[in-house]
Amino acid sequence: MPNITVQLFPGRSVETRRELVAELTRTTCAVLGCSPAAVTVILQDVEPHNWGVGGDLFSDKLATKAASDGDAD
Amino acid sequence: MPNITVQLFPGRSVETRRELVAELTRTTCAVLGCSPAAVTVILQDVEPHNWGVGGDLFSDKLATKAASDGDAD
Amino acid sequence: MPNITVQLFPGRSVETRRELVAELTRTTCAVLGCSPAAVTVILQDVEPHNWGVGGDLFSDKLATKAASDGDAD
Amino acid sequence: MPNITVQLFPGRSVETRRELVAELTRTTCAVLGCSPAAVTVILQDVEPHNWGVGGDLFSDKLATKAASDGDAD
Amino acid sequence: MPNITVQLFPGRSVETRRELVAELTRTTCAVLGCSPAAVTVILQDVEPHNWGVGGDLFSDKLATKAASDGDAD
Amino acid sequence: MPNITVQLFPGRSVETRRELVAELTRTTCAVLGCSPAAVTVILQDVEPHNWGVGGDLFSDKLATKAASDGDAD
Repeated sequence: MPNITVQLFPGRSVETRRELVAELTRTTCAVLGCSPAAVTVILQDVEPHNWGVGGDLFSDKLATKAASDGDAD
Repeated sequence: MPNITVQLFPGRSVETRRELVAELTRTTCAVLGCSPAAVTVILQDVEPHNWGVGGDLFSDKLATKAASDGDAD
Repeated sequence: MPNITVQLFPGRSVETRRELVAELTRTTCAVLGCSPAAVTVILQDVEPHNWGVGGDLFSDKLATKAASDGDAD
Repeated sequence: MPNITVQLFPGRSVETRRELVAELTRTTCAVLGCSPAAVTVILQDVEPHNWGVGGDLFSDKLATKAASDGDAD
Repeated sequence: MPNITVQLFPGRSVETRRELVAELTRTTCAVLGCSPAAVTVILQDVEPHNWGVGGDLFSDKLATKAASDGDAD
Repeated sequence: MPNITVQLFPGRSVETRRELVAELTRTTCAVLGCSPAAVTVILQDVEPHNWGVGGDLFSDKLATKAASDGDAD
């Protein structure tokens, strides 16, 4: 019965998605004692320019970080 | 007031989406007795490589089925 | 595969919920051609004081309507 | 702690998304008294052909409106 | 068209909920240029024992903070 | 950044919820390589009479199973 939805940044490979679905299912069954067949997992890609925290877009935070990392090199 | 969200595999035509929205609205009004104008429907396409059940991605299940269907031909 | 989520006002009986789940499943299968076993429906009760449109809470709209209906009697 | 999700039509610029995230965060903090760092905002683009009200797709409503505006010119 | 969903801790008064819905609607219309009638807001209460960040439940974080505040008095 | 939402049947203890949040966070970080502080988990209890699959409510499926288990004793 558990439905799991994961919102994450885009760009992960299908291999990583496969592993994430398998591992989240395994972890959920281990804790809740349900059967894997009952567990549904949906992954939702959210672009950094559509995701903000503290009033700022992650796309801007990432750009700022990349620039300061560039200065540090 | 009812808000309906449907998560489904991508690839359906606009005609099918039109019919699904109309029919889900009609069904909801018939059961709940609300007016169509109160019903909102949102369709969310979810790729098979972003949707898993039983720990496996649907994209893998579909590939396995296609292969075994191919063997059976 | 279709996952359907319905947000609606609380207060519906289990019978109504049973009918809504059955009818939404039947309608979805008729339009999308999927099997009933693939369709999941989740109902989410949302109190009128937690639901607003046009900047107003539905609880206030319902109270205003009840008052004006009372005047009209 | 507040998580805010906004479903809207696609096509808004990054500047508009930046302003929406900043302003919704500011407004939420002003009303709830929480700190901006606690507020997460996610924007979900929903195509008009995936969004219906009153049983009709918005894509159809927009097309009908555009045609009647065209006649009026 | 914008649908806004806000997940927040329970316990806010109806007055606060009324203000939050009104202000989020006003802010959204100011940024997106849409009409208030098009904006839907849904508030979802999430208990601190159902909300975690960094692997810890907020209920535990709040209890730890309360205890340390108690020591500081 | 990953936001995880888990819909599950009510009735789990706070200890189980604590473990589920901790383990899902650990698993997500192990697969995605993100830091625990970036991971948010929200648990949503869904009553069996609000959750259906194959057109039937889980509350009815559970009642039927309990009855047949009772016959088998």
